[in-house]
Amino acid sequence: MTAEAPLDALFDPASVAVVGASGNPEKWGYWLAKGALSGRGRRSVHLVNRRGGSLDGVPFRPGLTGLADAPEHVVVAVPAPSVRAVVAEGLAVGARCFTVVSAGGGSSEERALAELVTGGGARLLGPNCMGLVDASTQLRLSWGEFPVGGVGLVSQSGNLALEIGRLLARAGQGFSRFVSLGNQRDIDVADALEALVAHEPTRVIAAYVEDFRDGRRLARVLAAAHDAGKPVLLLTVGRSAASASAAASHTGALVSPYATVAAVCRDAGALLLDSAGELVDTAVCLLSGAAPRSGTHAYRVAIVGDSGGQGALAADACAVRGLDVPRLSTHTAHEVSAALPPGSGRINPVDLAGAGEADLGTYARVARALLRGKDADAVVLTGYFGDYASANPAQAGRECEVAGELADAAEASGRALLVHTMARDTPALAVLRRRGVPVYERIEQAATALSAVARLRAPWAAQESLQDPPPAAPPVPDGSYETVRALLTSHGLRFPAARFVTSADEAVAAARGIGFPVVLKAMGPAHKTEAGGVALGLADADSLRGAFRRMRTATGAGRYAVEAMVAPEHAHELIVGVRRDRAFGPVAMVGVGGVTAELLADTALAPAPLTAARARALLAELRHAPLLTGWRGAPAVSLRAVADAVCAVARAAAEHPELAELEINPLLAHPGGAIALDAHGVLAERPFPAGN
Amino acid sequence: MTAEAPLDALFDPASVAVVGASGNPEKWGYWLAKGALSGRGRRSVHLVNRRGGSLDGVPFRPGLTGLADAPEHVVVAVPAPSVRAVVAEGLAVGARCFTVVSAGGGSSEERALAELVTGGGARLLGPNCMGLVDASTQLRLSWGEFPVGGVGLVSQSGNLALEIGRLLARAGQGFSRFVSLGNQRDIDVADALEALVAHEPTRVIAAYVEDFRDGRRLARVLAAAHDAGKPVLLLTVGRSAASASAAASHTGALVSPYATVAAVCRDAGALLLDSAGELVDTAVCLLSGAAPRSGTHAYRVAIVGDSGGQGALAADACAVRGLDVPRLSTHTAHEVSAALPPGSGRINPVDLAGAGEADLGTYARVARALLRGKDADAVVLTGYFGDYASANPAQAGRECEVAGELADAAEASGRALLVHTMARDTPALAVLRRRGVPVYERIEQAATALSAVARLRAPWAAQESLQDPPPAAPPVPDGSYETVRALLTSHGLRFPAARFVTSADEAVAAARGIGFPVVLKAMGPAHKTEAGGVALGLADADSLRGAFRRMRTATGAGRYAVEAMVAPEHAHELIVGVRRDRAFGPVAMVGVGGVTAELLADTALAPAPLTAARARALLAELRHAPLLTGWRGAPAVSLRAVADAVCAVARAAAEHPELAELEINPLLAHPGGAIALDAHGVLAERPFPAGN
Repeated sequence: MTAEAPLDALFDPASVAVVGASGNPEKWGYWLAKGALSGRGRRSVHLVNRRGGSLDGVPFRPGLTGLADAPEHVVVAVPAPSVRAVVAEGLAVGARCFTVVSAGGGSSEERALAELVTGGGARLLGPNCMGLVDASTQLRLSWGEFPVGGVGLVSQSGNLALEIGRLLARAGQGFSRFVSLGNQRDIDVADALEALVAHEPTRVIAAYVEDFRDGRRLARVLAAAHDAGKPVLLLTVGRSAASASAAASHTGALVSPYATVAAVCRDAGALLLDSAGELVDTAVCLLSGAAPRSGTHAYRVAIVGDSGGQGALAADACAVRGLDVPRLSTHTAHEVSAALPPGSGRINPVDLAGAGEADLGTYARVARALLRGKDADAVVLTGYFGDYASANPAQAGRECEVAGELADAAEASGRALLVHTMARDTPALAVLRRRGVPVYERIEQAATALSAVARLRAPWAAQESLQDPPPAAPPVPDGSYETVRALLTSHGLRFPAARFVTSADEAVAAARGIGFPVVLKAMGPAHKTEAGGVALGLADADSLRGAFRRMRTATGAGRYAVEAMVAPEHAHELIVGVRRDRAFGPVAMVGVGGVTAELLADTALAPAPLTAARARALLAELRHAPLLTGWRGAPAVSLRAVADAVCAVARAAAEHPELAELEINPLLAHPGGAIALDAHGVLAERPFPAGN
Repeated sequence: MTAEAPLDALFDPASVAVVGASGNPEKWGYWLAKGALSGRGRRSVHLVNRRGGSLDGVPFRPGLTGLADAPEHVVVAVPAPSVRAVVAEGLAVGARCFTVVSAGGGSSEERALAELVTGGGARLLGPNCMGLVDASTQLRLSWGEFPVGGVGLVSQSGNLALEIGRLLARAGQGFSRFVSLGNQRDIDVADALEALVAHEPTRVIAAYVEDFRDGRRLARVLAAAHDAGKPVLLLTVGRSAASASAAASHTGALVSPYATVAAVCRDAGALLLDSAGELVDTAVCLLSGAAPRSGTHAYRVAIVGDSGGQGALAADACAVRGLDVPRLSTHTAHEVSAALPPGSGRINPVDLAGAGEADLGTYARVARALLRGKDADAVVLTGYFGDYASANPAQAGRECEVAGELADAAEASGRALLVHTMARDTPALAVLRRRGVPVYERIEQAATALSAVARLRAPWAAQESLQDPPPAAPPVPDGSYETVRALLTSHGLRFPAARFVTSADEAVAAARGIGFPVVLKAMGPAHKTEAGGVALGLADADSLRGAFRRMRTATGAGRYAVEAMVAPEHAHELIVGVRRDRAFGPVAMVGVGGVTAELLADTALAPAPLTAARARALLAELRHAPLLTGWRGAPAVSLRAVADAVCAVARAAAEHPELAELEINPLLAHPGGAIALDAHGVLAERPFPAGN
């Protein structure tokens, strides 16, 4: 669904009404009313309860009709059966948006509600949502504590939003805006995120999404957010199902919904994260101004600790996450040495070896030298800083001063400074947090946050990979080899010469036409090597007749393919497939075939259709990519032919929404080209949504 | 070094003296003296400073001579040049052990100090250590805060010990004993760990080690700890170097020191962890009574949350770490349903869907049903519990009650209950912690701790894999193919028939003897395919002469091998190697060869020598193991022949301490046997320590 009206009335209404207001703190209607009243400095607030009552001296009105001014935004917290009547009344008095906290009473009832609202020219948030909060407009229409800060959150889980809020608050951060999506019957995740991109106080966007709705549109919004300098940090579920399919060899399992989200995020420049904690650690790091490198080399981290052990563990934590802990340049090493007692370390990680404890200023001097140098994109202090005054209160003032100097140094350098410390809530840490320096209790939090930042990249060719699928072609009747082969051949994919036969005599005639040796394949479900449905290298008519006889006995198939035997030199087996995702539409996958596919799932994914350049980039992402480009002096396969084949499969699938899956396995890549040795499709059990 | 005297005097001396005592809180001598005095209820404490002074009314004595009773344990915190004189004086008055906090003044000075102490029949902790603490004997000879609990810690880093202490304290746990190893000139990590195995109040052992000393003895102590029911949780450095070598193809890089430690830990039933946080989370989980499964199936976790989103994220966090989140049995599902409002979920993760908030007792009822069921080894509560009273103080009492009921349920079941909560320090969480229920702020902490527990296994065949290497055989002169081939052949390894020649005529004569086709290899450093030093499949004398001419031009080699061309069907290339580690001695490695070795490092390691059974177990550990046992109907390779070959290489290397590395690459494994196609060794640049 596209935005039909701007969402101003949602986030900054001139007037708001809470229907179902209550004086009982155990009811949602209490918290919604209480929250709404907190914005009375900015807007008029009406509380409605047909049974009467009052809260904080504000009397409950019997209905929406006849209020002093018409409510722009109506919050509905009444039992499900009464929701539609409330909405109708609201529309009648001119309400422009409705936030329905009440559960909706079933799918068709919810759809009817959405039609009522949008048909009246208004917008609907929910039903079954937890409301929304906007710190910049003093709008507070939810339950729970929402610390204020720079993170805009869109969530399908209320508790997870509260958890993220708690973790942000402990890190000295909070929310600019919170939108609970509920069942997304009108305003969906893409709408909510789009509004956050335009929301000035929101500097980092976070989202927890279970149902992605129009995935292609969502991907475009993610890319727009990235371009606007507002990274999106996304959580979703299904990671374990995806990891289970890491030992699978068919498209349906390899292109899991989670893998699809991961591929879309990577293409759209969004960060898919694993937990609320990781999301918060990364958000805080980004809010501190940490930015990915514009170049291609690894993200570089310099580490400072007063203990060699903690410094070494910090270096390990960073390096295993793909961060570079580089050797210092001569210049920076010199500057670091100058900040330390004579003879002290000048290598990264920098071991202060007690000099930090002896003189807290050492931390600031060394950090400044590292932040000023050209050696590191970020500096991590590890271990002790922030805790010195705990044992020695006389140092409290000095430690806070040094905290300020550290923040100054980071600010002046424009680079990221992160602090890992064994302390928790000390005054020096409060200074750091207030000044926007991220403070972490565990070194792996700092390392994980930096590795997430390092992963932030410009959206991949947004102009191609985020387009809607092409219009549908006339549907194919089934997903058989014969049908799919014809479809793909018409898209330019190469297959070995083949004829389809039903008897041994026909098979022999076909083979003579094609030329021995040939391959015989049984058509239908038994079309598998393990089931005896494939016989290779049949050199003459007798072998072919023998194979035919055995295969018919083993499989009972009525139809067979006789094909040319193809065995190019220096060939590698690939698997190419497309799965149509209910949210994101057709998603293409290329992977290493054979054993590797089944044991290691070395695959790369992108939305289909795609260009040849994108297909080549996918091939380069494979861990086994070096195999394709000339391993140890062997000739390289034709990457152009492979890319063209991937594009052909992707386009064919994209034009056929009746196919849930389409797969070529193997595609034989060799120096002279790429040829498909087998293919099949899976018809969708129910139609896919239009456009996907 | 083996324990020459028991360490009783170290941990529970009848009397202690602090030499270098000070009244200045900025000096170590102050904290040592202060700590020693806190044990005066149990032992006599003498403070020594030749310049006089006093602390808390205890006067400083001028020396160790003439004290009221002779100090059993002397703590030395004087400048390095005075240490030996203090020790001599201590030995003269009968001191049985010395803890030297002072830095030692160089390696030879430290060795002299150790000889002085051990020569006098006493033991030395340090020098350059942070002292020790034993909560069970009121011995406190260190700096910093050491919360009391069930964890015995041995550490080579003082700051890391403090960090671990802070994290333990926040989790309601602490130390039974802390030993700072310093430079391990007498008492080493194995000694300290051995003492912890015997230390009754220590229930979980933690160690941070950079220098493993006698690794074989350490491994035996780790196995003994496991057998005593005291898991050892180990941290060390070098993980990033090991991860860098994940794309390497030679033994030296594949058998990194870190990979060696990891293999030894796994064999010895110890847990190698990544960070202080992970160590603490796991320790707390183990202290709560969580135990690995005795059977072979995956560790099973049942999850309960009041929010579907948090439950699903928890399930993902567990499953991606290899934990099983199983379907509930009909019986357990029924019990869970009975504890919930009608129609509620009976699937794992169990979504209370608000029933927890409505009635806190739901948590206890559902957890009890899951803990009693046979479906799960551990139950994880995720999200909210512990925080209900924060918004609604009226629930405080009830929440604490339910916390007690949860602890009761865990205790009664003998299974582990873990709580992840967005709350931090609430009364209900205090109840849980006091009752030994682990509480985590992030779901990944709970999942990581459980996955560590699940990895705890009985030591692998301790009787074989932890033995000392065999006595040394007469050394080989070099690591050339010719030399190594002869050595390995004498150990029973098979190679193709070969003759070593220096001219083309000799080569042809040799080939006629062996039978064409043959392989020609240049000996010496150019012995590499890429350098033109290997020619395969030479079918006749002319091809051989041509190859010889080209090879001599390309490589300038003086010596060549002519070998039978071997190309068995259904063969797989393996790499087998041994690296001699300075701490752990010879370590054998088997891995998949060729492309996979270079791109993926699919390897398994164990101390050498090893038995055929152990070698087979290593093969089974490879991710590509299915390739060897008959992939898709192909015949299996001879695992017995491969295992015998691995044993031969391991034993040869173990008997030759002059070899730093020994490598067979490739070993061709096929259904009929295993044959080495190439081999070489690397002589050690300096001798290895005796026994290793």
